[in-house]
Amino acid sequence: MFISFEGIDGSGKSTQARLLADALRADGRDVVLTREPGGSPGAEEIRRLVLEGDPDRWSAETEILLFTAARRDHMERTIQPALDAGKVVITDRFADSTRMYQGLSRGDLRGIVDQLHTLMIGRDPDLTFIIDMDPAKGLLRAKGRGGHEERFEDFGEALQARMREGFLALAKEFPGRCRVIDGDRAPGAVAEDVAVIARKSLAWTARA
Amino acid sequence: MFISFEGIDGSGKSTQARLLADALRADGRDVVLTREPGGSPGAEEIRRLVLEGDPDRWSAETEILLFTAARRDHMERTIQPALDAGKVVITDRFADSTRMYQGLSRGDLRGIVDQLHTLMIGRDPDLTFIIDMDPAKGLLRAKGRGGHEERFEDFGEALQARMREGFLALAKEFPGRCRVIDGDRAPGAVAEDVAVIARKSLAWTARA
Repeated sequence: MFISFEGIDGSGKSTQARLLADALRADGRDVVLTREPGGSPGAEEIRRLVLEGDPDRWSAETEILLFTAARRDHMERTIQPALDAGKVVITDRFADSTRMYQGLSRGDLRGIVDQLHTLMIGRDPDLTFIIDMDPAKGLLRAKGRGGHEERFEDFGEALQARMREGFLALAKEFPGRCRVIDGDRAPGAVAEDVAVIARKSLAWTARA
Repeated sequence: MFISFEGIDGSGKSTQARLLADALRADGRDVVLTREPGGSPGAEEIRRLVLEGDPDRWSAETEILLFTAARRDHMERTIQPALDAGKVVITDRFADSTRMYQGLSRGDLRGIVDQLHTLMIGRDPDLTFIIDMDPAKGLLRAKGRGGHEERFEDFGEALQARMREGFLALAKEFPGRCRVIDGDRAPGAVAEDVAVIARKSLAWTARA
């Protein structure tokens, strides 16, 4: 089973990905916890190429190609082998982040993102948790933790609000796999909801 | 006008690209001479990522995505601005090299190469010179010049022969823009043929 976590900066998605990995491991499951961009040695190299240096040095189109190359490597080297071995894969971000970010700046690129995804990646997670969060609170959290490397975190609350809308729109677009979770609570309470849903999905998958 | 040179290693395509640039500059034309993979600062970084390190660290699919990202950057930053300014662009290798190399190892990838090209690059050169050369002679030349960095040059004569067949097949597939030139002559004689054809094409383009 392939599970992704998405959400705005400071929503707590990385914490929740980790807590779910812990919970499923406590259930006796074999879990691979990974993240994007990156998640395999090659993909981490591409991540550095895209995220370091002048943010304007790549056009949106080139950036989509580079992120798709990284995702392909992540899928081939980390995700698919783990799924084939019967493990649960939990990733902090996946293709929904690309869909959302590109939609933010250039809505006309969504078609390209989707065509590249269909051609080169070919699948989405079985279950996606969208950790929903008030944009202002998320921003405070993201700034508070310091040392964050996401380029978009500097753009402020208006951008955070648009990112939130983008993720909620994706949840409506893919209702079969997306679950929106209220992230504006203690991490343990959020984690409990997440774990209940994940265990239910795993049980269904085992029955299918 | 957008002109590419293709051919097996040691065919003399880089020399011919340079000689044609010299000839057209002598005619008073503004010429940009470039090459792939690379040809713009970003594309050169991607080139290093692909060509340095363990050759098996990228799958063929990831490599095609990385080369397409590099080509997109090369097109946006170097080729298209020069064409828009009315210059002649001459490139040492372009998409035909990707088509040929991927066809060598995995013919089933040609569909992916073509779909990515249509989606993200969208055009081919107006004129492509395929410098044809006896595989054994090309190999001797490539080895003789030393310091070559092409990964494929180590694979020997059988591979060179298949590369030659691949380029000749592309010439048949794209007869409108491809001209096969006998490269097994003195560089000056080859360059004369190339210049005659290029000048004729430029004259037609000017009339159109």
